[in-house]
Amino acid sequence: MTQAQLQPLRKLRLGAFIMATGHHIAAWRHPGAQADAGVNIDHYIELAQTAERGLFDQVFVADSPGIWHQGDRESFSRQGRLSHFEPVTLWAALSAVTKHIGFVATASTTYEDPYLLARKFASLDHISKGRAAWNVVTTSAENVHGNFGLDAHPDPALRYERAHEFVDVVKGLWDSFEDEAFIRDKASGVYFDPDKLHALNHIGKHLKVKGPLNIERPPQGHPVIVQAGSSEDGKELAAATAEAIFTAWTSLAEAQAFYKDVKGRLAKYGRRPDQLLVLPGISPVIGRTEEEAQAKWAELQALIHPSVGLATLAPFWPGEDLSKWDLDARPPYIPEPPKGIHSRAHVVLELARRERYTVRQLYEYLAGARGHWVVVGTPVQIADRIQEWFENGAADGFNIMPPVLPQSLNEFVDLVVPELQKRGLFRTAYEGTTLRENLGLERPASRYAEPQAKAA
Amino acid sequence: MTQAQLQPLRKLRLGAFIMATGHHIAAWRHPGAQADAGVNIDHYIELAQTAERGLFDQVFVADSPGIWHQGDRESFSRQGRLSHFEPVTLWAALSAVTKHIGFVATASTTYEDPYLLARKFASLDHISKGRAAWNVVTTSAENVHGNFGLDAHPDPALRYERAHEFVDVVKGLWDSFEDEAFIRDKASGVYFDPDKLHALNHIGKHLKVKGPLNIERPPQGHPVIVQAGSSEDGKELAAATAEAIFTAWTSLAEAQAFYKDVKGRLAKYGRRPDQLLVLPGISPVIGRTEEEAQAKWAELQALIHPSVGLATLAPFWPGEDLSKWDLDARPPYIPEPPKGIHSRAHVVLELARRERYTVRQLYEYLAGARGHWVVVGTPVQIADRIQEWFENGAADGFNIMPPVLPQSLNEFVDLVVPELQKRGLFRTAYEGTTLRENLGLERPASRYAEPQAKAA
Repeated sequence: MTQAQLQPLRKLRLGAFIMATGHHIAAWRHPGAQADAGVNIDHYIELAQTAERGLFDQVFVADSPGIWHQGDRESFSRQGRLSHFEPVTLWAALSAVTKHIGFVATASTTYEDPYLLARKFASLDHISKGRAAWNVVTTSAENVHGNFGLDAHPDPALRYERAHEFVDVVKGLWDSFEDEAFIRDKASGVYFDPDKLHALNHIGKHLKVKGPLNIERPPQGHPVIVQAGSSEDGKELAAATAEAIFTAWTSLAEAQAFYKDVKGRLAKYGRRPDQLLVLPGISPVIGRTEEEAQAKWAELQALIHPSVGLATLAPFWPGEDLSKWDLDARPPYIPEPPKGIHSRAHVVLELARRERYTVRQLYEYLAGARGHWVVVGTPVQIADRIQEWFENGAADGFNIMPPVLPQSLNEFVDLVVPELQKRGLFRTAYEGTTLRENLGLERPASRYAEPQAKAA
Repeated sequence: MTQAQLQPLRKLRLGAFIMATGHHIAAWRHPGAQADAGVNIDHYIELAQTAERGLFDQVFVADSPGIWHQGDRESFSRQGRLSHFEPVTLWAALSAVTKHIGFVATASTTYEDPYLLARKFASLDHISKGRAAWNVVTTSAENVHGNFGLDAHPDPALRYERAHEFVDVVKGLWDSFEDEAFIRDKASGVYFDPDKLHALNHIGKHLKVKGPLNIERPPQGHPVIVQAGSSEDGKELAAATAEAIFTAWTSLAEAQAFYKDVKGRLAKYGRRPDQLLVLPGISPVIGRTEEEAQAKWAELQALIHPSVGLATLAPFWPGEDLSKWDLDARPPYIPEPPKGIHSRAHVVLELARRERYTVRQLYEYLAGARGHWVVVGTPVQIADRIQEWFENGAADGFNIMPPVLPQSLNEFVDLVVPELQKRGLFRTAYEGTTLRENLGLERPASRYAEPQAKAA
């Protein structure tokens, strides 16, 4: 056996979740942060090029088609993620100044139109030469519906029902032209074969869409489908349609259980476990020594204004005026967690009850990356945790959530990526030219392709 | 008086209407055309950089949110504009590889959503640092409504009524944050002033939109508003809201009448004539000699397959099978032109009747640029015509419609632009950094600005 053959075949996938000023709640105040990041194109160009230098598979931004609003006037005035680019336009711009990295854009099946959405993602896939992905969300924010003329936010069951239909319609629109539809023979004057153009003619419960789409099949067949909800509905949507799932866990055991759960749901949709990549979030605070890492973490935590910290806790104490609380005492009372999907409430109230956290400790816990997994340590320590999850059935890779941008992404690329490469876990060069090729995902056949072509 | 003071103050505006393979109906077959232009990003990068080299104000693409379909199967298979980028994603990509040129994206008030549209244009304006423009269309194509779940295409009166409301809503959303809303003081931790954030709370006849928009005010205040319809409704929408109007005339007298007409409509909206630029289309076929230009034109016309030519005439002979006609005879009969807005029908049927054009001559007339003004000649001859219209109340500038792309745009930049500069008609360097600055258009004040700021 050669050395190359001894290398593990399964490769770690890395995405950079590049949220404006960074994932720490007070990131924008840090000297290493770009304060106007949300609308600073040069900042995002730097981030994408840094992630590409680090051989990341993709960059990602979250999104909501409305304003992110939490807390009272005081805390609202101090939060740094109010004003930001629309994801698809941002990625289109960055695709022109990068060559390899993929682009995951979040877009809502509840509030967008399927024809326009199919079109803009197909366009992005052509513009980037096969590097587009769609993070399918149903939008959980409850202050968005008014922007779209609705009197109420549709409930989750309805949103997910529409999402299944919506994704199917979008995939159908992407297949409007078969791969071989265009001939473009200047001599004969024949441009395309009308037999290879298909109108969708979809009439469903939520949507009515005729088609065809006015752009040829994307280079990847379909842009990669990503899903990021960990509710029952979210897991089922992922099992049915997604090729990568972004998720949030803070312990190996929970992550393993989730991994097994979602992979186990694929068979009933006729899919294999390797057709859905599970990518938990991790927010690494990196120091050359453990002390340096801890000092960095403390520096960040000290930047949290109490009103901003308390605003993160307010949803768990509904109706309560938290501004009167003593930050260094325990909360005056601990309510029962609400029933249903809000798992962060359970974690926070459990910490308050069992671990006897103070108010400040509670909000500092949430401050790192909104409850995502924060790892404070040296490059070796961070690589250890990544390797542990990757090799023990908890992750196919990670969504790296740098606490401060651009600084923390640079540190990860310069310090942690080489450590992962040294261990043979991560690539030393891009394998392909499209995002699918780099992620090891198949190019889907068109729904209109001949059976033999479909099987090939 | 110095030489500089003698230069005319009024400057010629030039836009490049860069439609995929070019404006001639058979352009894609020409050796100088990029046959897969509609989805070839490298082609569009070259075009935008060429237009910027030529100091153009802006580039522009037309658009319809559906497939462009005309004629029977035979002619359909031979037309070259079926598959193309979505304009805003395309311009976002090109803005990252250019510095000065503006980007006019077409988007429909009939089929798009105002919140998402406001957001993507604001995003494009930030990404391009102030170089975005929106060509407001109501979509005249009658095969699009099915893509959006509608059973019929709304009639023009309804579409234009919605368009007025839609543009007002979009402008209101762009004003959500006042210009001075963001403080971003790392030391104090104050990011923005909530008093400078405004929800629109619009409830109108066609739209209900709460807001605020989740992106700060665009660098240009509002992206430049463009309008391209020459119907009564279109002229009125332009007078009420637009800052540039794209139009199509083939004679100086008609263009002068139109110019006077639209400029005369501004006063009732409290606007000055210089706040709306009139930009007719011109498709120049350029040769170093007149013979060379005529030979180029003949070469292009010879590339038209008869089925493609006849498809351009079919709408004027409804119900008739044109494929049996003798191309080199006159049409067997000439119907009355339809009543209403379809002015191209009048021109074509008039040529058939009075000028006794043959079938081939008729479709060759339409083939150049779908009835726009085609000028075949030397750089001096073309500059003469441009100067004549510009100096005689017919145009504030032109939308250049190259017959073949990229070839004809290169020829215009290399041969005609220097001639216009030599005559002192056109700039020799960009005046500003935003599209508004280059076009000499004011930056609009926010509707929420204090009166004194508004007046400034």
